[in-house]
Amino acid sequence: MSRFWSDVVHTLTPYVPGEQPKLDNLVKLNTNENPYGPSPKVLAAIAGATGDSLRLYPDPNADQLRAAIARGQGPGIEPAQVFVGNGSDEVLAVAFQALLKHGRPLLFPDITYSFYPVYCALYGIGYEQVPLDADFRIRPEDYRRPNGGIVFPNPNAPTGRWLTVDEIEGILEANPDSPVVVDEAYVDFGCESCRGLIRAHPNLLVVHTLSKGRSLAGLRLGYALGDPGLIEALDRVKNSFNSYPLDRLAMAGGIAAMEDREHYDRTRQAVMRSREWLAAELLRMGFEVLPSAANFIFARHPERDGAGLAAELRRRSIIVRHFNHPRIQDFLRITIGTDAQCQALTAALGAIL
Amino acid sequence: MSRFWSDVVHTLTPYVPGEQPKLDNLVKLNTNENPYGPSPKVLAAIAGATGDSLRLYPDPNADQLRAAIARGQGPGIEPAQVFVGNGSDEVLAVAFQALLKHGRPLLFPDITYSFYPVYCALYGIGYEQVPLDADFRIRPEDYRRPNGGIVFPNPNAPTGRWLTVDEIEGILEANPDSPVVVDEAYVDFGCESCRGLIRAHPNLLVVHTLSKGRSLAGLRLGYALGDPGLIEALDRVKNSFNSYPLDRLAMAGGIAAMEDREHYDRTRQAVMRSREWLAAELLRMGFEVLPSAANFIFARHPERDGAGLAAELRRRSIIVRHFNHPRIQDFLRITIGTDAQCQALTAALGAIL
Repeated sequence: MSRFWSDVVHTLTPYVPGEQPKLDNLVKLNTNENPYGPSPKVLAAIAGATGDSLRLYPDPNADQLRAAIARGQGPGIEPAQVFVGNGSDEVLAVAFQALLKHGRPLLFPDITYSFYPVYCALYGIGYEQVPLDADFRIRPEDYRRPNGGIVFPNPNAPTGRWLTVDEIEGILEANPDSPVVVDEAYVDFGCESCRGLIRAHPNLLVVHTLSKGRSLAGLRLGYALGDPGLIEALDRVKNSFNSYPLDRLAMAGGIAAMEDREHYDRTRQAVMRSREWLAAELLRMGFEVLPSAANFIFARHPERDGAGLAAELRRRSIIVRHFNHPRIQDFLRITIGTDAQCQALTAALGAIL
Repeated sequence: MSRFWSDVVHTLTPYVPGEQPKLDNLVKLNTNENPYGPSPKVLAAIAGATGDSLRLYPDPNADQLRAAIARGQGPGIEPAQVFVGNGSDEVLAVAFQALLKHGRPLLFPDITYSFYPVYCALYGIGYEQVPLDADFRIRPEDYRRPNGGIVFPNPNAPTGRWLTVDEIEGILEANPDSPVVVDEAYVDFGCESCRGLIRAHPNLLVVHTLSKGRSLAGLRLGYALGDPGLIEALDRVKNSFNSYPLDRLAMAGGIAAMEDREHYDRTRQAVMRSREWLAAELLRMGFEVLPSAANFIFARHPERDGAGLAAELRRRSIIVRHFNHPRIQDFLRITIGTDAQCQALTAALGAIL
């Protein structure tokens, strides 16, 4: 605390990310990283950009990366519909500031990515939390109330449950005057992206990350897709904040990652297979397991409290994420690891239960 | 323009960085990059971090980088006095939001880094511009008026003129109740840093970049030094915006850059020698040249308008920066290049004049 702080600083409750432990030999299933490394083509592209040219500023507009991302979406997406940022958290922050501050409250689920209320505090955005139903699902009909904007992840985090593209279109059609941000951080693992709706719905912004499906959490790359009018708002804020949010190495790696479709498909299929195996094992051990289209599973055991179970796993060098929120305090959010990591988890749970 | 924009977006006039031309064979003296590449140890450290570990998030607190930066300042600076960001533009943006929004206006020079009023628009900060004197100097006595904060670069940009540490201490002593941000982006090229004042002055924040003296504009690394109370404010805003602003490669490179003192000293000495040579040549050709402690020179020719001269240089494939501001419209801001680039510039000017 210091008397030199701007007023807003006193009101903030910063986001707390999952722990990045500095110990080796942990089974780290707590921050939804991909268990497989990035494409060798990404590493080669970074090596090619590691030289004297680092003395020069990067392209402030990241034109080549925007073009590669547009191409990577398949037909119908143009570079003018793409915004890029230093991780999808930054992209979301810019979207909250540029698009989601209006007179009426922003709507988002009561159980969702816990960064959303943090952004609201930072930018002075009023919000209402809309409860998930008893099965931890987003109900589209709950988003038919006065609002200044809507944001939700699809699949939702930390539940892993998802809406269909038709359900998302229903939300858009019910809210033609509101910006709607669909945070598809986990879309690579089994549900369909709603990016095909951006042409018909100029109020839709779709946010993606290269941290999960492209195995590049350590490189910080995210992007948004939307009508050029929305992208212009994001660019105006970005260019009033930091001209060069993406460095030369991240851009080189990001372009290569978008172009290596084969590595992306192979690794995400492997994650999905491991998820189905782990879900079946957990069910067999008596867990309730929510359906998941993400690279994590959200599960609770009817006879064990979540915090205690997480602590017992930690004693066995396995880290999962536990949220101390009333409706979900008995759940664990378990990142899908390699097959060996998933087996280590089930072996540990077998010993604990 | 779109009806989905937050109100603030309509009020923004984004910063326009110096051009990053996509042509080769230009003599690029327009964005104050270092003409010498980064340390080979930086390139080796980046290569060592380019691997499977990119699938993992970086350390959100950048503890190792903060420690390396603290060590790099010499005795008396602790890691708790260090904040790091994705380039010093991001560090400044966070400082404007976290420390410089108060009831009274922020003060900064009328001729200075043109990003400052852009940040003010983004965060709704009222400000007053304090004119430089007739010799384009900051006069410390002009900063004895009611204010909610003070920010200036030292050396100033685009003039290159500087204040002594004693003069800065005078500003601090006259304003014990105001946060004072000294933006030392160009401090590596001949004037003394005021970082030694942070212990005695808990209202002082000193901002540095690795873009200039460490030849890493392409990697996006900046930092701030100040009382832990100020650093906490910056961390609270950062952790409400983006948990992981620095990627793994930037952190590895940044640590190596702070540790290679020899490369830093050798390259900055070379830049300073070239600056003295170029200044003498320009004086000989009839230019008025402001004294500079930066890696650029600010100069005007009594018989030529600045825009025209910049255009003629551009036709000869030499790019310098020109600002269309009433008091400085006849000046050119010329980045110090290699000796060969400086000679190409003087040869071109010789042909033009």
